[in-house]
Amino acid sequence: MESAPPSDPRPGLFLAFEGVEGSGKTTQVALLAAWLRERGLDVVVAREPGSTPLGERVRQTVLAEVGLHVPARSELFLMLAARAAFVEQVVRPGVAAGRIVIADRFELSTLAYQGAGRGLPLDEVAACNRIATGGVTPDATVLLDVDPEVGAARQRAEGKSADRMEMEDVEFHRRVAAAYRAHAARVAGIMRVDAGAPRDEVQRRVRHALAARFPETFVGTGFISQ
Amino acid sequence: MESAPPSDPRPGLFLAFEGVEGSGKTTQVALLAAWLRERGLDVVVAREPGSTPLGERVRQTVLAEVGLHVPARSELFLMLAARAAFVEQVVRPGVAAGRIVIADRFELSTLAYQGAGRGLPLDEVAACNRIATGGVTPDATVLLDVDPEVGAARQRAEGKSADRMEMEDVEFHRRVAAAYRAHAARVAGIMRVDAGAPRDEVQRRVRHALAARFPETFVGTGFISQ
Repeated sequence: MESAPPSDPRPGLFLAFEGVEGSGKTTQVALLAAWLRERGLDVVVAREPGSTPLGERVRQTVLAEVGLHVPARSELFLMLAARAAFVEQVVRPGVAAGRIVIADRFELSTLAYQGAGRGLPLDEVAACNRIATGGVTPDATVLLDVDPEVGAARQRAEGKSADRMEMEDVEFHRRVAAAYRAHAARVAGIMRVDAGAPRDEVQRRVRHALAARFPETFVGTGFISQ
Repeated sequence: MESAPPSDPRPGLFLAFEGVEGSGKTTQVALLAAWLRERGLDVVVAREPGSTPLGERVRQTVLAEVGLHVPARSELFLMLAARAAFVEQVVRPGVAAGRIVIADRFELSTLAYQGAGRGLPLDEVAACNRIATGGVTPDATVLLDVDPEVGAARQRAEGKSADRMEMEDVEFHRRVAAAYRAHAARVAGIMRVDAGAPRDEVQRRVRHALAARFPETFVGTGFISQ
């Protein structure tokens, strides 16, 4: 594990992006990471499940292999197996080295998809989540909030093939979206960003929200004074 | 899901076999199943992880792929993903149809290997276990008790290639064996059978213990009166 150079006083940061299918997480994370890197910050972009050898294996099994029968509780535990490796191999060493780790999905996805979407008891999901992460939580979670119908239309327009979650019906995705909004309304660490706007406007909102929350990290990026 | 024929009054039964590597679980389960089948009983033999498409995938990843880095918590959750599928797809329908489901390993393995062996907190392992099984527990668990050194010597004699667990050092296997014995001493449902004897003598002890515990199931098998 590398450590931060002693001349760099910035603390590491762990950010998670959340949202329904088609909310623009992957795009917004990539735009944010590129912008931060241009300004000299050390950024790690990751996705969940994934970003470790085991996590990518889980991603393949649980998302891409739509013909494999995966009971809801098995899906939960597969996601958590990936998460435990992600925290140990990506988040902890990245933050300890002073990097900004940006995750495309984290524990809120599990509450929304396996909890609200699949109907598993939320207290069970939350308890297992805590065990998987060992208590590591994002410094901030950005919820890219769009109606699930808008997200689905965006995905159809992009013409990408649907994974296990994307193949679920509209009611499933409405439960997921409602769970996201309920969490954002209740938990102070979640920054809800209206993601129905054009891409660059959403990115401006994301940067603005993060700069307001983490002024020390964003000082010198050229954004904090905008 | 099939249901039991109305002429068959026997209830279904769920038995689990546990023990260290080389304790003879697979052999003893096969002998017991063959003997019960000869006597007209409907037996399902299964192994954990495994016995479902997802479970066999997990078995391959977590046991056979020794080059893949699997953190302890990920190993726990992979085992539980397999278990949730096993309970839903094998145990519940099998027992509901009046069958005798015999599992080579179940939840006690997780407490022994991921808890005592890997050092994960036992309360966390037990809590996640309960969520994976939905509270389904074996009607009886048979612990085939041998010293881990004896088991390891048996395995070397058989010349089979070592999986991820078998490759662990002797201290790991001593912790696993001690955890098994501690559970057997504390939990009434666990039948400890001395498995250091020759194969057929161990099988006789297994049948004797099971016949004493489940006389209705074993009536007419020719064993209950021995």
